[in-house]
Formats: sequence, C-alpha cells, structure tokens
Amino acid sequence: MTAVSGIIAIPLMLRDPFCMDDDDVGVSELIGTILFVSGLATLLQSTLGVRLPIVQGSTITFVVPTLAILAQPQWKCPYAAAREEFGVSVNFTSMGLPAVGSEGHREIWKKRIREIQGAIIVASLFQVVIGLSGIMTFALKFIGPLTILPIITLTGISLYPVGSSMSSGQWWIAIMTMFLVTLFSQYINNLRIPTVSCTNGGCRRSHLKLFGLFPILLAMIIGTLICAVLTVTDVLPSNIGEWGYLARTDTSLNVLRKAKWVKFPYPGQWGTPTVSAVGVFGMLSGVLAAMIESVGDYFACARLSGAPPPPLHAINRGVFMEGVCCVFTGAWGSGNGTTSFSENIGVIGLTKVGSRRVVQVGGLMMLVLGCFGKFAALFLIIPQPVLGGTFMITFAMVTAVGLSNMQYIDLNSSRNLFVVGVPIFFGLSLSQWVKSNDAIHTGNETIDQLLTVLFSTGMFVGGVIGFILDNTIPGTDEERGIKKWREALVGGDEDSLPSEQEVYDLPLVSKYIRRLWCLRYLPISPTFIIKEGRSTGDHDTQGELNIAFDAIDTKATPSHES
Amino acid sequence: MTAVSGIIAIPLMLRDPFCMDDDDVGVSELIGTILFVSGLATLLQSTLGVRLPIVQGSTITFVVPTLAILAQPQWKCPYAAAREEFGVSVNFTSMGLPAVGSEGHREIWKKRIREIQGAIIVASLFQVVIGLSGIMTFALKFIGPLTILPIITLTGISLYPVGSSMSSGQWWIAIMTMFLVTLFSQYINNLRIPTVSCTNGGCRRSHLKLFGLFPILLAMIIGTLICAVLTVTDVLPSNIGEWGYLARTDTSLNVLRKAKWVKFPYPGQWGTPTVSAVGVFGMLSGVLAAMIESVGDYFACARLSGAPPPPLHAINRGVFMEGVCCVFTGAWGSGNGTTSFSENIGVIGLTKVGSRRVVQVGGLMMLVLGCFGKFAALFLIIPQPVLGGTFMITFAMVTAVGLSNMQYIDLNSSRNLFVVGVPIFFGLSLSQWVKSNDAIHTGNETIDQLLTVLFSTGMFVGGVIGFILDNTIPGTDEERGIKKWREALVGGDEDSLPSEQEVYDLPLVSKYIRRLWCLRYLPISPTFIIKEGRSTGDHDTQGELNIAFDAIDTKATPSHES
Repeated sequence: MTAVSGIIAIPLMLRDPFCMDDDDVGVSELIGTILFVSGLATLLQSTLGVRLPIVQGSTITFVVPTLAILAQPQWKCPYAAAREEFGVSVNFTSMGLPAVGSEGHREIWKKRIREIQGAIIVASLFQVVIGLSGIMTFALKFIGPLTILPIITLTGISLYPVGSSMSSGQWWIAIMTMFLVTLFSQYINNLRIPTVSCTNGGCRRSHLKLFGLFPILLAMIIGTLICAVLTVTDVLPSNIGEWGYLARTDTSLNVLRKAKWVKFPYPGQWGTPTVSAVGVFGMLSGVLAAMIESVGDYFACARLSGAPPPPLHAINRGVFMEGVCCVFTGAWGSGNGTTSFSENIGVIGLTKVGSRRVVQVGGLMMLVLGCFGKFAALFLIIPQPVLGGTFMITFAMVTAVGLSNMQYIDLNSSRNLFVVGVPIFFGLSLSQWVKSNDAIHTGNETIDQLLTVLFSTGMFVGGVIGFILDNTIPGTDEERGIKKWREALVGGDEDSLPSEQEVYDLPLVSKYIRRLWCLRYLPISPTFIIKEGRSTGDHDTQGELNIAFDAIDTKATPSHES
Repeated sequence: MTAVSGIIAIPLMLRDPFCMDDDDVGVSELIGTILFVSGLATLLQSTLGVRLPIVQGSTITFVVPTLAILAQPQWKCPYAAAREEFGVSVNFTSMGLPAVGSEGHREIWKKRIREIQGAIIVASLFQVVIGLSGIMTFALKFIGPLTILPIITLTGISLYPVGSSMSSGQWWIAIMTMFLVTLFSQYINNLRIPTVSCTNGGCRRSHLKLFGLFPILLAMIIGTLICAVLTVTDVLPSNIGEWGYLARTDTSLNVLRKAKWVKFPYPGQWGTPTVSAVGVFGMLSGVLAAMIESVGDYFACARLSGAPPPPLHAINRGVFMEGVCCVFTGAWGSGNGTTSFSENIGVIGLTKVGSRRVVQVGGLMMLVLGCFGKFAALFLIIPQPVLGGTFMITFAMVTAVGLSNMQYIDLNSSRNLFVVGVPIFFGLSLSQWVKSNDAIHTGNETIDQLLTVLFSTGMFVGGVIGFILDNTIPGTDEERGIKKWREALVGGDEDSLPSEQEVYDLPLVSKYIRRLWCLRYLPISPTFIIKEGRSTGDHDTQGELNIAFDAIDTKATPSHES
C-alpha cells in the first residue's frame, strides 16, 4: 500500500507531458504497466539482485529529465496548445486533430512514450555496465553527502510545476488535501486506531497508528470522498470550461466501463522504442541519481532489517540488477525507470517486518494487479487537485530529505557552506534561466538541444557542480561528512547479525558459482575477489577498490570462507 | 572595505527595477546616498543603539519585496520595454520618452524610489514600535532556527534573476568572475601574501591571507581589469547592440566626468515619499526578516568581540535604533533599509579586532565618502557581468547560510523534515507560480495587488509557513533546535568578560537615566525592569519576558546593581 500510491503517481504526473489529454483508458494502461514492471523488478531484485527486502518502484528522478526532454519544441502537445488557445471545450476534430482516445491520438502519445522508452533503455545499459564492472563501488570513494544533497534536493524542488498545475484545477481542494496530509502525518500521527489483526492463531484487537502509517493514502481517499460529496451535490461546476470542474469525481467514471478486465502488458506494446542522443544523455542524469540513491538504500535496508552491511558483490549486483530492470521497464514502456523505494525501507523500521519473503509476495501482487485493467482504472477517479495536493507535500518531503544530508557535514566550515550553496543556487537558477530564455546557440542543433535538456535538469547541474567542488576544494573526510555518513550507513553493533553468506549468496546456484574460479573476477559474483587470493569476505586484505569502504569495513561482520 | 562592496551592490541591483536605464549619474547619486546613510546608521547603532561594534549596511532582505512591489504593472519601465521591443539602440525621444538622464527621465525613476521610500518609512515605524515596546524579546520565544531557515534561504534563492540578468550581458566574463571568487575564497584562501603593516611603533612585514579576507572585492577588481584589457584591445564589441558590449569598462566612463565632486545627500532629495498599502505591507516582510536576522547578529557580535551577551534592554534598543535608521534611510531615499552587516561580524572573528571605536570610525568614513560624487561614480566602471558573477556567488552563500540553520535541529525527526521541506518548497513554488500566472482575483484590486506582492515574496511565504508549522506541530525545544541555537548564540565561558553595565550602558546620559524611575518601564532603557523590583540585571528573578532567554540567562554574566 505504501509503494502503490507512489508508483501510480508517476503516470498521473506524466499524462500531460505525454500528451494523453483525456484519454483515461490510455492512462489506466500505463498505470497497469508500471505496476506490472514494478512487481517484476521487485521480484528480480530481492531474489537475484542485492537480495535485501527492497521494493522496486517508479522514481521521480526519471521524471525530471523526462519533463526536460519532452519540453523540446518537437514534443509540444497539440491538444494542450489547442485547449489553451480556444478554451478547454474546443472541438479537436474540427481542428484536424484525431479525437481524444482514438487510434490517431493514441499514436501521438505513444510516440512520446517510445522516445522516453528508448532513452531509458540505452541510458540504463550504462547502469548495467557500471554494476557489472564494479565501477560503482569505486566511484563511491568520491561521492559523499555533499554530492547527494543537491541531487535529491533539486529533484524535489524542480517538480513543483507538476504539482501546481494539477492543484490549479481547484486550489481550495488542493489546499484541503495538503492540510489533510499535514494533519495526518504531523498532528495526529500518533493517534492509535483500534484495529483487528488476524493471524494463524486467531484474531485479536490491536491499536495501530494508522494516520502515521498511511498519511498520503488516507488523505487521497478522504479528499476523493469529499470531492465525491461536492460532485453529487453539484457544488462543483458540471460545465467543462468552469474552474473547479477538474475536482469532480465523475469526469473519469467511464474509464471504469471502458477499461479491459484483463490487460497483459508486454514489451514493445507501444511500438518500437526510438533512440535519440538528446534523450539518452538527458535520461542519464536520472539513471545516475537513482543509482546513487539506491546504494544508500541498500545500507539503510540492511541496517533496518537486521542484515549485515551489503558486501561489494551485493552492491554491484544490486546496481546491475536495477539496470537490467530499468531496461525492462523501458522495454515494457512504463514511461519511467525503477529504483529502490525508500518509503518501504522506512516501513521496515515502523513495522519491524524485514522479511524478504514479504517483499517478494508484495512484488508478485503488484505484478498480478498490473494485469487487471479495471484495477488500474480505479486510480483515475482521484480528482487532479487531490493528487496535486499530495504531490506538493511529497515533493516538499523529497526536498527536505535531500537537505537532511546536512546532518553529516560540518556546517561551521565556510568550505561546506560554499559547497552546499553554490550547487543548489545554480541548479535552481540555471534551470529556470534556460527554461525562460532560449539562450543556447552553439551552431549545432543537437548540441543546443542536449545542453538545453541537461541545463534545465536542475539535479544534473547541481549534482555535477557539487561533485566537482566537493572533490576539489580541500577538506577532510570528517569536514565533508563522509566519515559520519558511512558510519550512519552501516549502523551500530553487528555481532548478533547473520553472516554475509546467509543473506547475500545467490539461491540454488551458489554451489556451482563456487566451482567456477573465473567468476571470482566478476564484480557481481558472490565469490568476487579483487586481487589474487584476496576475497571480499576476507576483510583484512581487501584490495584497492575497498578504500572507499574503509570506514565500513572496520566494523564489518565476521568473515566467511569463500 | 568588506562592507562597502556589499552596500554599493544594492543600488547596482536596483537600477533596472528603478528604471534608471543608462542614467549613470543618477545611479552614482544613489550610491552616494546609500553610503552616507549606512555610515550614519553605523554611528547611531554603535553609539546609542545596541552599542556593539556592528556595521549597519544595506540589505537584500529589502530588495526581495522591492522587486515584488516594482513588478506591478503600473511600475513597468517604459525604457526597458522600448529596448526589448525595438533593440537596445532605440531612439527614446522619437518614441515620446524623455532622453536618458534628462529631468523628465529622472522624474520617472524618482517616482519609483519615492514609492519605495514611503513603503520603507511606514513599514520601519512598525520596527520602531516593536523595539520601543519590547515585543521583539517576547516574540523570540516563538522564533527558532526553523523559522529563520526558510527566510534566509529563500532570500538568497529568490534573487537569482538579478544576478542572471546582469551575467547574461557576457556569460563568459560572469563565469570567469565566479571562478575567481571561488578560487580566492576556497582554493587559495590560506595563501599568505607578504604585506607591510604600519602602526605608531613603525612599519613591519607581515603575512596576510588577503584572498581569504577579500575574495569578492579582489574578484571584482581583477575581473574589471581583465575587462579593461579586453576593452582596450577591442576584443569586446564596441557596438551597443552586440552581445558582450556590457562587459566593456568604457561605457560608463563619462559618469566620472559628469558626477559632481561633492554631492550632499539630504532627506527628501527625490521629492516627497509616496505611501501605498501594497508597498507598506510588502515591505513589512523585509523589515521583519532584517530584524530577526539582526537580533541573531547581536549575539554573534557580542560573542566574537568578547562582550557579554546583550541584555534585553540592549536588544530592544538595537531593534528600536535599527527601525529609526530605516526610517532615515527611507527619508534620505537610498532605495533600501539598513540592517546589521553579518559579513563584518565575520571580520571581527578573522581580524580579532572587536573595537567599537574602529566601527565608529568606519561609519564616519562611509558618511564622508558618501558625499563625494566622484567616489561613488568610480563603482560604475565595474562591468555588469563582473557584478553579476559576484552577486551569484553572494546569493548562493546567503542560501547556504540560511540552510546552515539545520545544524541546530534534529534531522532524524520526520517532524523537522516536514517543517524544513514544506516552507522552502512552497516559498519557492508559490512565488514562481504567482509570477508566471496572473491568478489572484478577489474582486478588490488593492487586495489582489497586495496578495500578489506578498505571495511573490518567497521569504514571506516560507517564513510564515515555517513559523506556523514550527509552533503548532508538537516537538521539544531540543528537537526544534531552539536549545542548541540559543546556546550557540550565547557562546561558551564568560567569566572573563567585562560587565554588562560597562558594555551596554548609554554614554553620558546613564547617570540621569538612573534617576528617572519611570524609565524602568521603558524596554529600551538600561534600567528596564519587567516587574516591580525585578531588573534585567537581577538574573534570578527575571520576569515573564525572560522565559525566552532562560537558556541564555542561566549562563549570563555577573549581575550589576541598577
């Protein structure tokens, strides 16, 4: 439940940039696809990848470059343009545009999805290579909280236009929803609601902090119910041109009728993905950001679920498998990639359930639900302003999570103030400036487009500046927060934890892997060694690659034979 | 030198919003005025106000609402509009506009300054009342780092258009200047430059970290010199319409000839200030922000200069005097208010010179220099892109200083993440949204304008949301960072410090003040008591107002008789 509201949010954010207009059936198919591939990715990651109880879902780090790519003139949406010029109730067919939801219109939005699919597939191959080659664990030497801070912060901030354009459909409803989220998550989050929980041993009454567990979901439901009441009583205008119409709950009801009961998503369902240099390089920033975030999540997940910190081969395999899954999501055409879902790692902390099996079952459920067209269509009843309100708070929280990286660094150091301020400021201002001025003219159109897409992706600008400044301006590991950050990643006492082998070895095939000595040179193999005779399990003799993890390794778990 | 480059920056930022176009003589008069009033305010504050070695200067917290006020349609600049439509070399007189720099043109920009003057004067009266009544020290109970954080952060971020529009005159020059600032302040800041320092006892060689002390000033000078070389060699285009012309150093040379040798600024020099509700309420957010920042500065300044933490009466008197000085700056028409200059407090830390006399002499120098028209005109030689580059880094640092308030709060608390993220996100997005959508229609034009100005002032939106959330969402003082923040304000061991009386009593008049018992009820009097028989000097029996300063008072200095 925690993951689903986040996963289905992405297609709802992207429906306008994809030019899907009012084609609710199309949106419901996209929702089905993204649920399906998220389930698939969760199964693959938890079983063959990093093997931690991690839910893979959609990610807003891919949305930022997607918006930048689709902001190019050739992807301007003719439907949105027509509505803007001639009013919302414009007759599209009289303008020579195919009717909304017709094959002609579907081809228009499919073309945009195919462009994003191609970009995701090719950019993710890069991640596959990084995982397979073990580069990531090497690069971690140079990546600290001061690089991550601008990336995550700017991801959150730069999405505000998505939230505000949805909210503007009916500001009061959006504000009410934000108020509900605030109320649930901050004021009454500790209220214990009596519930009945049933297990094999029978049912018993218990008290759950429901509001604290599902503030977004509950706000969405209650916001929708309020809109339903306002729709039935006709307080909200029923005329499509009037302000507030978008808050009605009956505008998308026919999608429930039209959507197929069973719709099986398959690779290439929107046609063959198209690849362009601008798309690929633009998307790369999303892939890199998601990848860095994921590695942090592996450590957080291991800590919360009582597993030893992931060894290098598990990190590499996680990155590799995430890359493979991103290629899959690209091939299936969810319009998004996949990354580890931080929210669900938080849920492990709240529920104390850190079982890999639970996550695998959850993944299977998503995979199955994604095939039921009418289930996906249900989400379309949520009015846009309600979605906008919850998105705004979500983006604000992403911003704050990014900023919370400041806890690791020394804020009395003027070096750090510089390395914090400059990337955030330029990430914000350069992207705003490029968007509002058609300023980049190098003489080569492709390079112009590429630079425009990259520079209008705030997290790319901020991340690159932050990375360069943090690695060139003199400062100790302590000042830069790298020491504290690594300690926080690994967590405290680990004597009572299971062995690495137990948690991170691959199922069934381990025996055969151990026999093939050549696999020792493969960074994603559980038997991966860095130099002849030195294995990852043997902590005192780790090779060069492990310098990055010195801080971690000094506290690591008892070694095992390999 | 530290203060001057910051003070003169404000008129250079405001010349375009004021519609001063190429009237360099007018700008030089404005620079003279702001130097004069800054000197005056410094003298008043350090002598009769809080009596700490604090430099009063211009402040960007007033620039943000100024830009919002002047963004209203009636203040649109006809010169900028004409240049945008017909090219930069447009003939204004043929369009019915007075020639640039003529009396007619001066009246156009004077009208805008008068509107800002009126707004500053009336809004600052509010600060005078707050200081005089002692409300500020009471309000501090509710103001913590979580309120200050969004205010300062958003002040920095929201000024990026000023920096980027100046930089766009020649991006490469601007980038070079930013690079110089970065180089000086971060990479070679510890380089010791051999200098000769002379005192009464004769001259001797010493080594100063020049680049670390004056990174901005040196970058401005070197950037200007490079532009001068590029101008002389005609690398920069000499045609006014061409890109890069604005980086030339000879465009404003005639101002040196035209500017008067002596130009004495006086109150009402631009005519009688005009007052509008929109202006006053808009400016109020600047006044409040500057005031809160100043109180923090008093503590920082006292700590760094070895004085005991300021008692309530000194804080109240500081706020009161700053309000009075703001009224003066409004009357004189510097186009800005005045506030304590944080940079110079930093300089006390660097130079270990915390003498009140030094600051008073500095103030006197500014006051005198402000009367020399040709001195002020000198600053106009700095090319716009060089200014833009230094501004960008300055704004980025302001952003970072705002964010550094996170060091006091518990960043593992999801409450705090919410209280950090929501104000910053909405402060940014609401102001962007209001600027790009003409969306506020209440039916009353004045209210529409007022709301537009307030909502497009990010620091107002962020500050109000932060203040409300921080004071209503349950959280301990420790979690909210109030405890750590107050401790940091007061600083460590104070046994060796001079007594409060020595530092904060008023000169000459103290004897008479002590005789007038009725002054005990005046919050700005050194004899101020809160309840009958309880004086601020008597630390064990402080009244209700002091609750806010419990943390401070427990560590306070030896009491004195009153």
